[in-house]
Amino acid sequence: MVYQLYYWPTIQGRGEFVRLALEEAGAGYVDVARGENGMKALMAALDTDDHPSFAPPFLQAGTLTIGQVANILLYLGDHLPLAPRGEAARIWTHQLQLTIADLVAETHDTHHPVSSSAYYDDQKPEAKKRAAEFVKERIPKFMEYFARALGSQDYFNGAHVSYADLSLFQVIAGLRYAFPKAMARSEKQHPSLTALHDRVAQRPKIAAYLDSARRLPFNEEGIFRHYPELDH
Amino acid sequence: MVYQLYYWPTIQGRGEFVRLALEEAGAGYVDVARGENGMKALMAALDTDDHPSFAPPFLQAGTLTIGQVANILLYLGDHLPLAPRGEAARIWTHQLQLTIADLVAETHDTHHPVSSSAYYDDQKPEAKKRAAEFVKERIPKFMEYFARALGSQDYFNGAHVSYADLSLFQVIAGLRYAFPKAMARSEKQHPSLTALHDRVAQRPKIAAYLDSARRLPFNEEGIFRHYPELDH
Repeated sequence: MVYQLYYWPTIQGRGEFVRLALEEAGAGYVDVARGENGMKALMAALDTDDHPSFAPPFLQAGTLTIGQVANILLYLGDHLPLAPRGEAARIWTHQLQLTIADLVAETHDTHHPVSSSAYYDDQKPEAKKRAAEFVKERIPKFMEYFARALGSQDYFNGAHVSYADLSLFQVIAGLRYAFPKAMARSEKQHPSLTALHDRVAQRPKIAAYLDSARRLPFNEEGIFRHYPELDH
Repeated sequence: MVYQLYYWPTIQGRGEFVRLALEEAGAGYVDVARGENGMKALMAALDTDDHPSFAPPFLQAGTLTIGQVANILLYLGDHLPLAPRGEAARIWTHQLQLTIADLVAETHDTHHPVSSSAYYDDQKPEAKKRAAEFVKERIPKFMEYFARALGSQDYFNGAHVSYADLSLFQVIAGLRYAFPKAMARSEKQHPSLTALHDRVAQRPKIAAYLDSARRLPFNEEGIFRHYPELDH
């Protein structure tokens, strides 16, 4: 099976959580919009009336088209060695992923607290207020939660990596880029999460991916944006 | 199996999506925090280190504790007649639910665009801006999407109701309460969604539930709040 990933071609964004999973599993995949005529193919696929997606990313897997990051990962976890098999651990992994999705949405809203279709510059005063709250209340609350969920394990499910671990790696990498000051404080409090980040980064397939041209750099078009005025 | 639902006792909030599913399935359940010493039990259950939930609602099902609304519904859909059984339809139903969850989060942020822990009155100017955008851009975009996903079917999966239909009913009911002017416009454009709302409301078990004391009224502590200054 060669998967077809549909996502914006110039950002990590929400698509990156899927890319990391496909890379870790060594799955064959085409990052459609990064190929020739890719944006045209993305827009055409978005336009379908057959199980349409509200927004990218979505994944074609044979005859299936699957939207929503957590849903894509749930599916991949059932077909690739990216999640435990038992019902309890499968549900728990998905629960963690959905909580990561909440944090990602809140991160987006630090730079777009009024409107996702307007420019950052047009909502800067509101962004400063929201980001101040995010840095003071939300990063600590989420990180404390994930540290509690991890406990003293190597990964959320013990010895075996899952898509939730890959996603938490990405969130930590992204928050480090966007909010270096706030994350330096947070990581001092939760060394177990830094260790999880490093453990994922050092996995051979992830390390090779991060070192490749397939890994786009963070930038100010994605979810994790470095605006120094928002980081305290 | 008697399920134990843990959620705030005085609001519909996110717990309502789970309540509606349990009611439609005729499942036995205890709404723990609404019983004697219920808030104490809720706070104690939140405090666990064993598969903790980031926030209510969470559901106890035998030895399992499941957090995140969409995850709870995925689980219930696998065990009660609330979702189709085939992989493609099961994934599609979950995808719709996750998109509904995104809309619910955006609805919350219309009255709390800066901070979820601060009062509405302390973020009113920002709320007015965000709500204006929500009413103008987001309600139309989401409703157009759900109408497209529904097509000419009775329910999202054809003849059989699923938890996603129940959740869309709840979103429409909630948005009607919070944004009556905006929703009147939207419903004129998408009569198929109004019909879906009515179809769900008239299902015998849902109708009995809505008519019972178990259904809390909408209020200004929940997700869907009626602040006339935000509705245009």
